[in-house]
Amino acid sequence: MTAKRQPIEYADASSEVRAVYDDIMATRKTDWVNNFWKVLAHDPPTLRRIWTNIKEVMGPGTLSPVTKELLYVAVSVSNGCHYCIASHSAAARKLGMTESQYSELLAVVGLASETNRLVTALDVAIDPAFL
Amino acid sequence: MTAKRQPIEYADASSEVRAVYDDIMATRKTDWVNNFWKVLAHDPPTLRRIWTNIKEVMGPGTLSPVTKELLYVAVSVSNGCHYCIASHSAAARKLGMTESQYSELLAVVGLASETNRLVTALDVAIDPAFL
Amino acid sequence: MTAKRQPIEYADASSEVRAVYDDIMATRKTDWVNNFWKVLAHDPPTLRRIWTNIKEVMGPGTLSPVTKELLYVAVSVSNGCHYCIASHSAAARKLGMTESQYSELLAVVGLASETNRLVTALDVAIDPAFL
Amino acid sequence: MTAKRQPIEYADASSEVRAVYDDIMATRKTDWVNNFWKVLAHDPPTLRRIWTNIKEVMGPGTLSPVTKELLYVAVSVSNGCHYCIASHSAAARKLGMTESQYSELLAVVGLASETNRLVTALDVAIDPAFL
Amino acid sequence: MTAKRQPIEYADASSEVRAVYDDIMATRKTDWVNNFWKVLAHDPPTLRRIWTNIKEVMGPGTLSPVTKELLYVAVSVSNGCHYCIASHSAAARKLGMTESQYSELLAVVGLASETNRLVTALDVAIDPAFL
Amino acid sequence: MTAKRQPIEYADASSEVRAVYDDIMATRKTDWVNNFWKVLAHDPPTLRRIWTNIKEVMGPGTLSPVTKELLYVAVSVSNGCHYCIASHSAAARKLGMTESQYSELLAVVGLASETNRLVTALDVAIDPAFL
Repeated sequence: MTAKRQPIEYADASSEVRAVYDDIMATRKTDWVNNFWKVLAHDPPTLRRIWTNIKEVMGPGTLSPVTKELLYVAVSVSNGCHYCIASHSAAARKLGMTESQYSELLAVVGLASETNRLVTALDVAIDPAFL
Repeated sequence: MTAKRQPIEYADASSEVRAVYDDIMATRKTDWVNNFWKVLAHDPPTLRRIWTNIKEVMGPGTLSPVTKELLYVAVSVSNGCHYCIASHSAAARKLGMTESQYSELLAVVGLASETNRLVTALDVAIDPAFL
Repeated sequence: MTAKRQPIEYADASSEVRAVYDDIMATRKTDWVNNFWKVLAHDPPTLRRIWTNIKEVMGPGTLSPVTKELLYVAVSVSNGCHYCIASHSAAARKLGMTESQYSELLAVVGLASETNRLVTALDVAIDPAFL
Repeated sequence: MTAKRQPIEYADASSEVRAVYDDIMATRKTDWVNNFWKVLAHDPPTLRRIWTNIKEVMGPGTLSPVTKELLYVAVSVSNGCHYCIASHSAAARKLGMTESQYSELLAVVGLASETNRLVTALDVAIDPAFL
Repeated sequence: MTAKRQPIEYADASSEVRAVYDDIMATRKTDWVNNFWKVLAHDPPTLRRIWTNIKEVMGPGTLSPVTKELLYVAVSVSNGCHYCIASHSAAARKLGMTESQYSELLAVVGLASETNRLVTALDVAIDPAFL
Repeated sequence: MTAKRQPIEYADASSEVRAVYDDIMATRKTDWVNNFWKVLAHDPPTLRRIWTNIKEVMGPGTLSPVTKELLYVAVSVSNGCHYCIASHSAAARKLGMTESQYSELLAVVGLASETNRLVTALDVAIDPAFL
């Protein structure tokens, strides 16, 4: 027996979990569900809650879907989450992100990380124009 | 006397530093330089080096300038840099970011931070489709 | 030869290191020592120092042992340490943490990470009641 | 005019926002709302969404309410969110956390941060017993 | 009354706390104790424990004292701890760190933060020569 | 086909990329290039830009080369970058870092991480002497 939670496949899922899987596939127009949801499924209320949040936050709004995925990748890099980088850069590519855009995204993330640290170290006072 | 580096104003700057300030203002079409550069100016080679990087990375490319600023804000929130959040959200607003878009940016950053931690805790295996 | 430090087994350990291993096993009432200590053993003073700290901090006090392990897991998730998540969630389970409690722990860690970022981005002023 | 979002007081809030404020006060049995919600109120859908999440995650479950607040504080320290540390340690105190327990919480958070880094640096392999 | 722990001055300290303050001053050959210790003093066992660790880790060894302080500053910048940056860069200056060296330290910290993120994003495989 | 960027070997590299590889090998007096550069090579302007930065920042200055590598390792541990820890600790060893010095480095990084969190949690006010 292992402590690590393994993905729960559709065939083995409760009806409560299947309802979320079905909504994920219908919303994304795909015929599969990625591992994140299958592992979250060990805790059905959290599965449902996180999916509801993702659906609302990543759904139609005033930022384009691809921009939201780019932001998701940038945060995931900052937090060192390899799975999240892989899954959200895949989502971004599906929405049209080019390799050149991905390179620029990485360059911005890297440089921001550098200047963030310099500013923190130097404890720079916020200019009145930025308040 | 204080150990903390204070901003160096144009009037007090060396010609090497002034050359960078001039290029910043010309590139940004503004008549002032923000505190980050004025504090970096205590170390002219770093001032020049970081400005050269910013100019190259944030300049014209395949991602729009406002998207790059949104990414900069997202990383700065992740790294907890208040000055950087203030300065780059100001830059994003100047480039057309609306308050509604800012709200969506924050929602994505927050939710990504949540799911990043869940994925890390659960050590989710990367789906073959994402490799 | 490899630069990466490999675990030092009891049979190969110095008497100084064995004394710490013995105390770990006696304190925990187990007959084995986990890899963290075996790798730290390349630096006996640090091995002894860290064990002394763990013994004092994680020992009897006003928070229950399982609560301390839950906190250890929460911090380890925040810092992205897979080994630490695995070892301290195992310790928490041994002390009685249920799978339902683990799910709630993860939910709190995830949500706190989300609101931490929102608060940082929005630079919320501390209410007088919290000072 | 300032870019930084200021708290929206009840008297100035829309009915949509007031409904959330009312639910927060009813749930917490208090007659005031803290600044986090008042600043989030600039974006009513996020205000409602985050409150719904907090209510669900921090509500009755298998971990005690005070344990959940302790975990919230531990994560907030790890993420460097001063407001969150102040507000959730206040919540923990209200639920019975003693100063001695708070000291122990801080000791665990600090020590976990230390060992997390040592483990990361040494790239310790997970013991089979922890898998 | 405030929840935030205020510094405990020597005159108001217990004999247990004074003993630590005395040892700090004797070890550092100074006639004052900085705020970190005075705030830790609310929890005497932690005060004593952390001081014992600092004394052992920062004491004589194979890395020079100033190198240890430089490393302390680098970590403190990475963790966004303003107090720690201020106190340990003061300690480094006292041990001979020049302003030019401080500038180089910051440049390394910034650049490492940038390349750390690039490597994480690109998930670079470790070269056999580094194993 | 995979989304993950694979190392580009010298034989397969463009002349623009080869010029950077050549400069890396000449500067480091080695006959090979490590994977970081080979993966960055998918984006030649970033390859060139990052190498230029590394060459300037890690080149001769007022901090010794080995001290700079120690700082690089400390930051990489703080950011959880395994590749960077491996490559820069290898570089430090090549420049003379002993195993005993590496142990002391790790001890400082760990302890700084602990006190950074304690200071953040306790929100310690900066002593006037440190300003």
